[in-house]
Amino acid sequence: MGPGPSNVPPSVLNAMSSQTIGHLDPEFLILMDQIRSKLRQVFGTDNEVTIPISGTGSAGMETCLVNLLEPGDCVLVGINGVFGNRLRDVAERACATVTEVEQVWGRTFDVDQFREAANGKKFKLVCVVHAETSTGALQELQGFDDFADEVGALLLVDTVTSLGGVELNIDESGIDATYSGTQKCLSCPPGLSPVSFSDKALEVLSGRKTPVQSWYFDLTLITQYWGEERAYHHTAPINMLYGLHEALELILDEGLQNRAMRHLTNCQALIAGLQEIGLEMLVPESERLPSLTSVCIPPGMNDEQVRRQLLENHGLEIGGGLGPLKGKIWRIGLMGASSTSENVSFCLSALSEALRFQGF
Amino acid sequence: MGPGPSNVPPSVLNAMSSQTIGHLDPEFLILMDQIRSKLRQVFGTDNEVTIPISGTGSAGMETCLVNLLEPGDCVLVGINGVFGNRLRDVAERACATVTEVEQVWGRTFDVDQFREAANGKKFKLVCVVHAETSTGALQELQGFDDFADEVGALLLVDTVTSLGGVELNIDESGIDATYSGTQKCLSCPPGLSPVSFSDKALEVLSGRKTPVQSWYFDLTLITQYWGEERAYHHTAPINMLYGLHEALELILDEGLQNRAMRHLTNCQALIAGLQEIGLEMLVPESERLPSLTSVCIPPGMNDEQVRRQLLENHGLEIGGGLGPLKGKIWRIGLMGASSTSENVSFCLSALSEALRFQGF
Repeated sequence: MGPGPSNVPPSVLNAMSSQTIGHLDPEFLILMDQIRSKLRQVFGTDNEVTIPISGTGSAGMETCLVNLLEPGDCVLVGINGVFGNRLRDVAERACATVTEVEQVWGRTFDVDQFREAANGKKFKLVCVVHAETSTGALQELQGFDDFADEVGALLLVDTVTSLGGVELNIDESGIDATYSGTQKCLSCPPGLSPVSFSDKALEVLSGRKTPVQSWYFDLTLITQYWGEERAYHHTAPINMLYGLHEALELILDEGLQNRAMRHLTNCQALIAGLQEIGLEMLVPESERLPSLTSVCIPPGMNDEQVRRQLLENHGLEIGGGLGPLKGKIWRIGLMGASSTSENVSFCLSALSEALRFQGF
Repeated sequence: MGPGPSNVPPSVLNAMSSQTIGHLDPEFLILMDQIRSKLRQVFGTDNEVTIPISGTGSAGMETCLVNLLEPGDCVLVGINGVFGNRLRDVAERACATVTEVEQVWGRTFDVDQFREAANGKKFKLVCVVHAETSTGALQELQGFDDFADEVGALLLVDTVTSLGGVELNIDESGIDATYSGTQKCLSCPPGLSPVSFSDKALEVLSGRKTPVQSWYFDLTLITQYWGEERAYHHTAPINMLYGLHEALELILDEGLQNRAMRHLTNCQALIAGLQEIGLEMLVPESERLPSLTSVCIPPGMNDEQVRRQLLENHGLEIGGGLGPLKGKIWRIGLMGASSTSENVSFCLSALSEALRFQGF
């Protein structure tokens, strides 16, 4: 119940333990097509290029940035946590010029803050994090597509901790590029990063004047393998893809709306229980992420001792804070298969015991 | 029995299906240390930085190049197949200046060819492929460390298809950086790329004047997670690492020398059988790679029909040729768990049936 990886359903683990077949085996090519089709449904998109990158979530982030940016391009990045910072770092390594929009960690942006920061200038890319895994804040996306249009930019959104757990329809939200991870609300082990690119993003890609700086993340080469050419690029992580295929099937069987409702209901029950214990949430009610709750560590409580006690006495992992929030919050994930009412009760009882032990 | 992925032993598949735990869980940190230690044994090295990169073999190649190269650096690359070409491509994307040393595909280099191509100039990096997966040629490494010293360079070697199947001791060979893949002679599914960096390579890394262009492959950040700091970089592919841990255990239980001997013996039996059928090998006897055999397609035989028949009638995959060797060779892998005398007989009988069917 940390900020990911979440628990993995037995059928996904079982799928991953099937014998490895070749990355050009006709049976495997069928599985790849099914994964693409299911991913499109979960992302809410018709984007042809909707595929898993062979790396974890940050590999997907880098794929989006290095394919869409060329040296000197201007990027507007919203920073309200670790992953906004990471977007800036990766964009700068791609030799882009980054303009930051800052917000307090634990809060989200009003699109007008972006408008103000843009200050009438044009940009190649506007980047915002939908679900900030370092704070548990859920960004309202409405208005960002219009704003990106105003400044002549593509809209890039981090959906690592929202995909499969929170309502998301990237076509309706006008998102041009997005990346996610398998180990959060998809409840598949870490190792793959689903990405999706709109036609507009692909036009920008095909109009590049310089080569993509990464060979491994070069989307044009990758899509020649995932598309009709089936041209060998790198050896796909076969067994991870078996797992993703099964995880997506479970999600579509449950239904995206049911799944979002389950995440919301369990999160609300968790928060009610945490408040009953006397704890405060980091994020204001209207900006909370159903898959991850950040709770403020009460004064006098020892962060690491409490977490160690939870792990050793209860086999329960929750996350600590990162960067400026280290020692100040705990992050409790209710993601994918881990989002159950049993886990809510279990966590509340274990945490209140650990806190009582510390004299709370 | 293609050029990888090889078959995966049941205990490795079973390990991969264990429940996912956190990437900072104390139990997982112990597993990480064990993986590092076992990898050092398999590579034959004392290098502290010997870790699996969270991507397939090409991700390891890119990790080596982008960490060791800065814009304008000069690199000498031996090209005798697809992977030498890929080294050049990745190095050029890192804005290095590449000098090529060319050799016929299916043959290996004499170090004097490198000396001649260097032409008295200095280089930052000398790159050579130990086991060319596109041709089945095994490069003799002796003399390359002295040559790299002569030209002031680090020695980078591709060991994707040799690690765990062919005798290899990177410290004795004076290799400064190397990358491999899990899906070849390690017989673990694809998805991880073991790499190793010598102290001399780490000195070059720490003396960089420019940031590493890739965030995901930034070795300094990655080693802060794999080293004592345990600083979160990206979420490690937990279940893949369970599999690698078990695969390495199997290798060390068998013994590296026994394993190399098994690969050699089975390869020799395969070649004897292929020759008996009347087929010719692409690679001269003294330059053959025990884990992968390239056999010339006899005139008049239909490459794709034969391979389809093997797959459909026998469930047997062998590889076709790449690039200039497309339609000219078949590549038969005897890697890791797939290198058995049963597989040799099975392949020979299936292939001769398929060839007879084509009128051979």
